[in-house]
Amino acid sequence: MDRALISFQTEPARYRHWRLTIEPPVATLAMDVAEDGGLAEGYELKLNSYDLGVDIELHDAVQRLRFEHPEVRTVVLTSAKDKIFCAGANIRMLAAAPHPAKVNFCKFTNETRNGIEDATAASGQIYLAALNGTASGGGYELALACEHLMLVDDRSSVVSLPELPLLGVLPGTGGLTRLTDKRHVRRDLADCFATRAEGIGGRKAVAWRLVDEVAPRSAWAQAVAARAAELASRSSRPEGATGITLTPLDKARTDDAIGYRYVSARLDHAAGVAGIEVRGPGSAAPAGAAELHQQGAGFWTLAMTRELDDLILDLRANEPELGTWVLRTRGDPALVLGHDALLLASAGDWLASEILLYLKRTLKRLDVTSRSLIALIEPGSCFAGSLLELALAADRSYMLDGLPGEAAADARPAAVTVGELNLGPLPMGNGLSRLATRFLGDPDALAAAEKQSGEPLAAADAERLGLVTFAPDDIDWDDEVRIAIEERASFSPDALTGMEASYRFAGPETMETKIFGRLSAWQNWIFTRPNASGPDGALSRYGTGQRPRFDRRRT
Amino acid sequence: MDRALISFQTEPARYRHWRLTIEPPVATLAMDVAEDGGLAEGYELKLNSYDLGVDIELHDAVQRLRFEHPEVRTVVLTSAKDKIFCAGANIRMLAAAPHPAKVNFCKFTNETRNGIEDATAASGQIYLAALNGTASGGGYELALACEHLMLVDDRSSVVSLPELPLLGVLPGTGGLTRLTDKRHVRRDLADCFATRAEGIGGRKAVAWRLVDEVAPRSAWAQAVAARAAELASRSSRPEGATGITLTPLDKARTDDAIGYRYVSARLDHAAGVAGIEVRGPGSAAPAGAAELHQQGAGFWTLAMTRELDDLILDLRANEPELGTWVLRTRGDPALVLGHDALLLASAGDWLASEILLYLKRTLKRLDVTSRSLIALIEPGSCFAGSLLELALAADRSYMLDGLPGEAAADARPAAVTVGELNLGPLPMGNGLSRLATRFLGDPDALAAAEKQSGEPLAAADAERLGLVTFAPDDIDWDDEVRIAIEERASFSPDALTGMEASYRFAGPETMETKIFGRLSAWQNWIFTRPNASGPDGALSRYGTGQRPRFDRRRT
Repeated sequence: MDRALISFQTEPARYRHWRLTIEPPVATLAMDVAEDGGLAEGYELKLNSYDLGVDIELHDAVQRLRFEHPEVRTVVLTSAKDKIFCAGANIRMLAAAPHPAKVNFCKFTNETRNGIEDATAASGQIYLAALNGTASGGGYELALACEHLMLVDDRSSVVSLPELPLLGVLPGTGGLTRLTDKRHVRRDLADCFATRAEGIGGRKAVAWRLVDEVAPRSAWAQAVAARAAELASRSSRPEGATGITLTPLDKARTDDAIGYRYVSARLDHAAGVAGIEVRGPGSAAPAGAAELHQQGAGFWTLAMTRELDDLILDLRANEPELGTWVLRTRGDPALVLGHDALLLASAGDWLASEILLYLKRTLKRLDVTSRSLIALIEPGSCFAGSLLELALAADRSYMLDGLPGEAAADARPAAVTVGELNLGPLPMGNGLSRLATRFLGDPDALAAAEKQSGEPLAAADAERLGLVTFAPDDIDWDDEVRIAIEERASFSPDALTGMEASYRFAGPETMETKIFGRLSAWQNWIFTRPNASGPDGALSRYGTGQRPRFDRRRT
Repeated sequence: MDRALISFQTEPARYRHWRLTIEPPVATLAMDVAEDGGLAEGYELKLNSYDLGVDIELHDAVQRLRFEHPEVRTVVLTSAKDKIFCAGANIRMLAAAPHPAKVNFCKFTNETRNGIEDATAASGQIYLAALNGTASGGGYELALACEHLMLVDDRSSVVSLPELPLLGVLPGTGGLTRLTDKRHVRRDLADCFATRAEGIGGRKAVAWRLVDEVAPRSAWAQAVAARAAELASRSSRPEGATGITLTPLDKARTDDAIGYRYVSARLDHAAGVAGIEVRGPGSAAPAGAAELHQQGAGFWTLAMTRELDDLILDLRANEPELGTWVLRTRGDPALVLGHDALLLASAGDWLASEILLYLKRTLKRLDVTSRSLIALIEPGSCFAGSLLELALAADRSYMLDGLPGEAAADARPAAVTVGELNLGPLPMGNGLSRLATRFLGDPDALAAAEKQSGEPLAAADAERLGLVTFAPDDIDWDDEVRIAIEERASFSPDALTGMEASYRFAGPETMETKIFGRLSAWQNWIFTRPNASGPDGALSRYGTGQRPRFDRRRT
């Protein structure tokens, strides 16, 4: 394998771009980007600008704070550099990146920012943006993901979204949506702000709701410390909790296979298919929360989720031509449900809660993945509760009715089992469970499926209840499945992305679905247009001293 | 002027593609597309496929039915051709159209389909799709806009969305969203349906909720008539109403000016600006509903709305390079409010209701127009009530504080007046009034603005209340306005479109905003991609016998 693969695994000791210091109840995450530390050649990460590599470290830090440092109640996001907080995504990196890489980069940074909001809202780790210098573009968007924004008031530090006037693109990580829908900046002021390359600072930034407070440099450290303490006092984080260690993943990767303990994938480059298998637990769930803490990162649900999360990120970044992911499971459904039950029974326990929240985020990552997802439900599988979510996340599912001809004498047909975790604790970005999204506007069908909770359902029942798409028998299975997968590979990858993004988010919209659906779609479109990426486009010409030339037709 | 301009004005006597027959309470609108009747050269409208010209007639018919035929309670949408209902948008037309024309075409067809749903929901003219043959692509999407879908059961007629498998694009007029969010087709079945080029007919189409009922050809006419009568019996349409005539618009058009009675526009091609003026009523509103009926199409609100609607459509289709629309009004605010008051006081009157609904749709058309909207509020203007909506629809507004230096002795400074019509009866696509969208998440500001209802507000008050963006005085006015307009023209037109589409629809989402925001953005993106529109793309190669070649990277 001679390709340079992007890895999403890191740890604080290896960070090149961030400094994490912890003085409970406050952690400080200071951005200090190494100019020569870019993931690819051809650009320098000046002014705390970032590329995917910088964001991979940020993502790691946010995750570790939740699992390894439950004693932290406020996370101060700031810069270790003078006068600049963060200049946003590196422009030369963006201009040089191929379109799919741009879009994948924006998706991951969006997910990381959503994770910051999830930590604040669900884990009581409240993020405070301490903008000790200018925050522009993605730098300000990163700040917008925080609960409280402070800006140093020094007559030069501003917040800005200069993408539109300078680069001819949109802010790519939710800035427009967060301005209006989260911070309630009036839409006409938001318009002025996002067309004003020089940004806004001082009291006007507060008046326009762009930041929550300003403080002079002389009183800055004190003001930040006071606000951090005040936020910590609001936190719901429990007292006296001790973290667990997120140990390194045991991962093996070749050009055609990726393996972890509970997750593996076969990469079929000729067919454009990744065959993913998720294995259930090898033994019964621990008896209670204390033992769960002892198992720590070895606890099946957490270990499996970490592996699945890493696999999704690896395949997205490194295997864009594997357009179809075929999802299988293997194991004992009762053991899966047992692990689910322990997590649910430990409702007050911070670690059990974190594991469920992480599973929720990982499944959401699957939902916004631009790959066709096909679930195959076969004998020996364990699509129950938490793992049934994989089938419910899929664009379609096939369940074998009966046994294959070559089955062993003691083989048992496949079953799926609806569990408690399917009924609410793992909502999609639209705020609904995958089951409720599936039966949108059909409360009777939803109630019928819920009523079967806990019962292993054979293929005919699962199909009748609408839990699976098709239930072919052994005679039809191979052909139906083969045709479905081959057919998918014959379609336009772009049209599939658009269709799946539409169907997966039926029903209500949230800020999150708006960011991934509406805003990302516009951004994707703008990125591909000659006015941005053509030779005379704004993104290509930025920094050359030449003005862009636009096709002026409005579309 | 040697350009061929697209006109949106027509009338039933001039239809080339539709047959409208009225037998109260049922109207039948039968599609009978003239193959040689395309709006442009280079394609034949076979199999009831359509282009913009066909849809302009449909739009006219839907409008006229509402105003001219209040006696109609059910509209049967069917085909005058055997075996085919409608094959959707003409592929050769689409493949040959430049990107902005494709997008503009989809926008108008979307608006017309939304208008069909609005007629059903708000006017009690209930649309019945009588699919007497196959409805594919945009043909099926047209049917999806109807309240009830019947399909002939003859073993060959199907409904289908073959865009993705055959053309590598998405259904362009809301099909995906209506399947899941309106008809509640399960998302995995919707996936199978939209990837199955051959479509689905008969009982399976009913089982999958793709249509509401099927009937054999032998019983077809009887079944359609029975269903039409049943729908008519559900209608809220009043008994004994007499329609008004939508008389031809008095329109003058040159290359640099468009004029009507109450609306005019100056087209500055060098600057890329259309200066739009809307004039208030010339006299007081009639005393009551009876006189309103007598005035008919001459009633100010209706006349102004029809002119504004036509102007929006004209500028969108014919002047894509006029990227900024500057909105002004002129007249007496009291007369505007008087006309508003009559409409509100006539709440039970079908015509008053239709006029408000039409104003609502026209303002929504403005909201989804991909042009920057800047409102200028000057002395002599009448931004009050219905016309204040223009300023609230704008991306930003400038209000002159005080009087210009050259003002006459009796001149009075500009005022804006919040009226009843700003408080709910004219919702945006997101279901909120423009005022509520403006003050999203800020109920105090909304209440403060509402409290001033009926009071003329000077610039300082309007600015303080957040009703206008800026209120420069005479010294700054010219420069501020000039710079704002010039600056707008210097930005990437695509980035502006994306930004405005995001900001204009803050807050909740509806099927309508999903169609215009999420779905249209994906479609725009897909249309521009080489996989669709490149020389080897699916759209370009359709019908050539050559298979498309795709860049397989998923994005």
